[in-house]
Amino acid sequence: MTAAASWPRIEGLAYGGDYNPEQWSRATWDEDVLLMREAGVNLVSVGIFSWALLEPKEGLYDFAWMDELLDLLHANGIAVDLGTPSVSPPAWFFHAYPESRVVTKDGTVMGFGSRGMASHASPEYREAIARMAGELARRYGNHPAVVMWHVHNEYGVPVGEDFSPRAVASWRGWLQRRYSTLEALNSAWGTAFWGQHYDDWEHVVAPAATPTTVNPAMKLDWARFTDDQLRECFVIERDAIREHASQPVTTNFMAHQSWNVDLWKWAQLVDVVSDDHYLWAPDPDAHVLLSLAADLTRSVAGGKPWILMEHSTSAVNWQGHNVAKRAGEMRRNSLTHLARGADAVMFFQWRASRSGAEKFHSAMIPHAGTNSRLWREVVELGGHLKDAAEVRGSVVRADVAVLYDWESLWAQDLEWRPSDDVQFRERMRAYYEGLWRDGVTVDFAHPTHDLSRYKLVVAPASYLLTAEAAANLTAYVAGGGTLLVNFFSGIVDEHDAVHAGGFGAPSRTRWA
Amino acid sequence: MTAAASWPRIEGLAYGGDYNPEQWSRATWDEDVLLMREAGVNLVSVGIFSWALLEPKEGLYDFAWMDELLDLLHANGIAVDLGTPSVSPPAWFFHAYPESRVVTKDGTVMGFGSRGMASHASPEYREAIARMAGELARRYGNHPAVVMWHVHNEYGVPVGEDFSPRAVASWRGWLQRRYSTLEALNSAWGTAFWGQHYDDWEHVVAPAATPTTVNPAMKLDWARFTDDQLRECFVIERDAIREHASQPVTTNFMAHQSWNVDLWKWAQLVDVVSDDHYLWAPDPDAHVLLSLAADLTRSVAGGKPWILMEHSTSAVNWQGHNVAKRAGEMRRNSLTHLARGADAVMFFQWRASRSGAEKFHSAMIPHAGTNSRLWREVVELGGHLKDAAEVRGSVVRADVAVLYDWESLWAQDLEWRPSDDVQFRERMRAYYEGLWRDGVTVDFAHPTHDLSRYKLVVAPASYLLTAEAAANLTAYVAGGGTLLVNFFSGIVDEHDAVHAGGFGAPSRTRWA
Amino acid sequence: MTAAASWPRIEGLAYGGDYNPEQWSRATWDEDVLLMREAGVNLVSVGIFSWALLEPKEGLYDFAWMDELLDLLHANGIAVDLGTPSVSPPAWFFHAYPESRVVTKDGTVMGFGSRGMASHASPEYREAIARMAGELARRYGNHPAVVMWHVHNEYGVPVGEDFSPRAVASWRGWLQRRYSTLEALNSAWGTAFWGQHYDDWEHVVAPAATPTTVNPAMKLDWARFTDDQLRECFVIERDAIREHASQPVTTNFMAHQSWNVDLWKWAQLVDVVSDDHYLWAPDPDAHVLLSLAADLTRSVAGGKPWILMEHSTSAVNWQGHNVAKRAGEMRRNSLTHLARGADAVMFFQWRASRSGAEKFHSAMIPHAGTNSRLWREVVELGGHLKDAAEVRGSVVRADVAVLYDWESLWAQDLEWRPSDDVQFRERMRAYYEGLWRDGVTVDFAHPTHDLSRYKLVVAPASYLLTAEAAANLTAYVAGGGTLLVNFFSGIVDEHDAVHAGGFGAPSRTRWA
Repeated sequence: MTAAASWPRIEGLAYGGDYNPEQWSRATWDEDVLLMREAGVNLVSVGIFSWALLEPKEGLYDFAWMDELLDLLHANGIAVDLGTPSVSPPAWFFHAYPESRVVTKDGTVMGFGSRGMASHASPEYREAIARMAGELARRYGNHPAVVMWHVHNEYGVPVGEDFSPRAVASWRGWLQRRYSTLEALNSAWGTAFWGQHYDDWEHVVAPAATPTTVNPAMKLDWARFTDDQLRECFVIERDAIREHASQPVTTNFMAHQSWNVDLWKWAQLVDVVSDDHYLWAPDPDAHVLLSLAADLTRSVAGGKPWILMEHSTSAVNWQGHNVAKRAGEMRRNSLTHLARGADAVMFFQWRASRSGAEKFHSAMIPHAGTNSRLWREVVELGGHLKDAAEVRGSVVRADVAVLYDWESLWAQDLEWRPSDDVQFRERMRAYYEGLWRDGVTVDFAHPTHDLSRYKLVVAPASYLLTAEAAANLTAYVAGGGTLLVNFFSGIVDEHDAVHAGGFGAPSRTRWA
Repeated sequence: MTAAASWPRIEGLAYGGDYNPEQWSRATWDEDVLLMREAGVNLVSVGIFSWALLEPKEGLYDFAWMDELLDLLHANGIAVDLGTPSVSPPAWFFHAYPESRVVTKDGTVMGFGSRGMASHASPEYREAIARMAGELARRYGNHPAVVMWHVHNEYGVPVGEDFSPRAVASWRGWLQRRYSTLEALNSAWGTAFWGQHYDDWEHVVAPAATPTTVNPAMKLDWARFTDDQLRECFVIERDAIREHASQPVTTNFMAHQSWNVDLWKWAQLVDVVSDDHYLWAPDPDAHVLLSLAADLTRSVAGGKPWILMEHSTSAVNWQGHNVAKRAGEMRRNSLTHLARGADAVMFFQWRASRSGAEKFHSAMIPHAGTNSRLWREVVELGGHLKDAAEVRGSVVRADVAVLYDWESLWAQDLEWRPSDDVQFRERMRAYYEGLWRDGVTVDFAHPTHDLSRYKLVVAPASYLLTAEAAANLTAYVAGGGTLLVNFFSGIVDEHDAVHAGGFGAPSRTRWA
Repeated sequence: MTAAASWPRIEGLAYGGDYNPEQWSRATWDEDVLLMREAGVNLVSVGIFSWALLEPKEGLYDFAWMDELLDLLHANGIAVDLGTPSVSPPAWFFHAYPESRVVTKDGTVMGFGSRGMASHASPEYREAIARMAGELARRYGNHPAVVMWHVHNEYGVPVGEDFSPRAVASWRGWLQRRYSTLEALNSAWGTAFWGQHYDDWEHVVAPAATPTTVNPAMKLDWARFTDDQLRECFVIERDAIREHASQPVTTNFMAHQSWNVDLWKWAQLVDVVSDDHYLWAPDPDAHVLLSLAADLTRSVAGGKPWILMEHSTSAVNWQGHNVAKRAGEMRRNSLTHLARGADAVMFFQWRASRSGAEKFHSAMIPHAGTNSRLWREVVELGGHLKDAAEVRGSVVRADVAVLYDWESLWAQDLEWRPSDDVQFRERMRAYYEGLWRDGVTVDFAHPTHDLSRYKLVVAPASYLLTAEAAANLTAYVAGGGTLLVNFFSGIVDEHDAVHAGGFGAPSRTRWA
């Protein structure tokens, strides 16, 4: 079976949010679907955290409640983006497979009771998620309510790195595949500095706790490895789904808010690109970063349909001061996404939780209920989206490209750079904000992309720039393009090694 | 044998402090009792940290020095508040029972060399403290010097929480007793959020290190469990004493300064309520919190006698800037306690230590010796207390009650609330200070207490408010009372679940 | 064989830096020696981080490249300060001897991938460094290029303390040798406070993680022990060298920048005293501390030759904002050292690294190459030093001594002192800077030194002052000297116990 390459079977724009009915009585479900219809909701994401209820004991499944839920939604004309629950394995999983827990840099084992604690390197975890995704796809691949698959949740947060023994073993295998020989690894990592030469693959360590700064090239590779581990797990689930189902598959990114995932690579793997965005309350101009994230999401999508999978109707709960949105702010943020090409406006979550870590996160139905300003704004927004159905699928055209490369982000933000203040994010914002204030529409691009269609290319933070990318930029300029390059760009190659520059051509030492 | 329900056999007000003669030569003891008589000291607390000298090897006791000390004090008319040394087990104990050490949230084992490192869940610790308390009571239950028993020291500081394997095992038992069924636990904790449903008691974890915020209802129960563990240990010691002795039993609280103990519950267990209070030097109005603590201590005592067990003659040693007291400040603070009903004024400690972690903590005899302003003030204060003997047992009457509930404190100060600035302590101080500046005498009360005798009830921080408490407050107002409620009150129930409010009645899901 | 007691066989002043040719191709070596000659470089330090290349597998040596390098340098008239690579054991060492890794206070094992992670208490480490130093000395003890030995690198940073099981076992042996009896240890540590009395050597712990402040006298001894462990390792290497070689032996200090080593003791052990100094960029008057460090280095040398082993040509890389030096600043700092008696001006490092943690640290050849202001300044400085050859061996005479005692530093900076703001370093700088601004040349002295030749002795931070030192100062004043003592001086004895003062003579308790 092959996956659909297009946006799911929904008329016009999609509107809705994460729906977690397992937190509510059956009577509330009926109230929910009535209210969804009142608000114009036509798409909800379900099941993202439901593993413990779908498989209460290992190998024992309970799909009855999900059957009932999907039928209820379908009967009310509400389509479903069906989640795989891999972000939150049940308590029994960690009890049975304690070595599948994430370990921090300093050796602390991450325990159950929160979320996101599974080691993506664990074979048992990988087997369990493949099985669960397969079971769901087999059962719901043909369910008429299901129009899309939502694998996992926000890969890379709250944790990306994992120093568990399983992860370190995977790391060695990854390095062998990447470098083939220890000579190549020693050369790439510059192990001659501080006497770190390796003579045996088994001696290679991960960049865990050390007395002072760890080898930066190792750490940059570790970031690549971490991203790869997450992507491997996504592909395991996606492929397990595709064996039984043909709806498009997505996973929700956090563009410019989650740093462990290279979205240029991830966007290749999904059918629909989706993004979550949350404002940072202390920032009076947080809407500029919201626009940046939307432009970045559209850019990585590269022509694929893309949607806003999550944002908030008002305050979030995890910041120091969770500021409620002003009247109209939710609409402004929603329309900002539409204007940048999104085909859906979705929220976390439909109904505010009474319990749990995020009960003070706003929702489409607030704690105050439907007799509230917030609910009226939610209904109003549903109307706006219905009226704007014609913009679905519209295309954004930009004359300016901003270079954005996660590898350069990872490299630039390593330790012991000339100044802590020269950060990828700060530079990116400074340039983007300037263009935004001048009303210039921008795409983002990778430095190796074909840039010939742009009048201007801006490189705010290209600290890491490969020879291939440099050649590409040179060709762009030679072809008449205008390139604006920020200071501290083009400093290192893909191994965080300073380009040869005044030294003459780089050369191998006798040991590498 | 039953414990005396009243203040010990001392004439007038008690005056004195912690006395640690094990730090001094025998000749100094003689000097000490002479100086105590000069200062009017009539009560000293001894033995609080003496375990290693009383039981130098496991099961081998040395009471000779204590016999000599108590006889000397008695011969000089100085009564003794005899400590049990359970706060500081000897080095041999931790060597023999390394699993009795406290473990932090991130897995670090707390080592010997400081104090307070014993796991209160450890059966070996519990057995050892029962045996030691029993031995002391058997030997000194009839000693004429001993007028009170001082169990442990400042329960809840420096550590309350304990994530040792022993503690986690106790936690599971505690939860089974509290909830009986896993359905009840899942419902109370809202485990449907983030997929945390439990299907087996053995899978239940403690709120140790996790990738992001842990289940808040679990954490609230963990606070209750932590407090219960400490109280169980107190009762073990108290009951071991009562088998052989009839003097009243106390333990020194730190009202509004130690947060792990629910003093409404603790005050039920002691015969005499006692409190320690230390000013926070950077706070120019620290005396307001001193008054608050005194009012709170009197309130939890609920008519039982209460005393100031520890304060300082001048600077402490554990703050960033340990400011010496101005002339008269020690007297002011002492009299503030008397004015709020205290029957004793005591200090940590009698004679400043030459060695150890607290040698820069002030004392009744400073390092400078008796030819010092401080000593003269100590002697002067002794005279004042003698003159004020008639206020002993006087009763404070208030028309205003301030609601204070440790469970609400624990809940409100969990993570991921709307604002980090809305804290129990800040709100409590804001309201108390307003009343204090207006010269209004207040009691503190639990929200379920009979409030009918108060003209005004103030609720500065009732974030957690049970249905029972809400009914009590409603009845108070219906009966003509005036209730002033701060914002962010009445938000959650006893499980940190948001009250149903606009949602209609809360209801059970199918899984709980 | 005995070591030479004098400055190596170099004409005039020495000029150069750390040279790490293993990071470069053989062709670059030829360019390097040409450029060294251009700049007037006559001394380079090599091999400091070369263990993994000199002994690629345990017991398998590869000296061929070092032979070639030393011959090349010698042929070009450049002398060699030959490093022992003990600061950076190879990956194979930690794989074979994982228990030789440093463990932090809270139990985290320091991993490979950085530097400085070997436990100095490890017998395997000690054996390995003795063997390596011996092999090097046997091979190069008679090499004409080698004029000095450079053992290890900056002892005490990045880590000093080590809580590995090996270290804790050594600690117990060290304490037994220091105190002989447990009674003496209990008395010295004041274990009567907080019930810490020891009854068995096996029960004695190290000051690792504890619930609150650890016994300060234990911690002060721990600082002494840590310093002793490092010094023992230095002596092991030095003596292994002296078996085969007669050149002077040094190790590079970081006076007033590394706090774990008592340089009064260390300077006794070396033949030539050498120091590294790096400016703290945010400090606009960092050159005052540079002068202090130079005066301190000369003072601990006590008449032995001393040199500036490392400073930087421009910015470093490990601070938050690594500020480049202004024109002339490098020369100013170099000459400041000459003016205070240094016989060499050296840098880290010769050629800026392309890879590794310190690639953004400036060097004599910057990334920009030789067509740069920095290179021109390096060549210019070489010329100045050549012109100033006659100052070699000149002697500095001072009329003022400032008391400086690492034991007092360790003691004063323990926890729970009267004020966090009264720190050894702050006080030392305040007094030194006052004298510096008045143009007063100062020596540093230990409080037990003969001070009779000074007109003025200043004690900025003599918190710990032994009876012997106090007698020395009293005699100095009695002999007509002027002593200026800062507040918070003379507070404690060598065990961090408050001097008896108003208490009368200190006396032993019955337990110690």
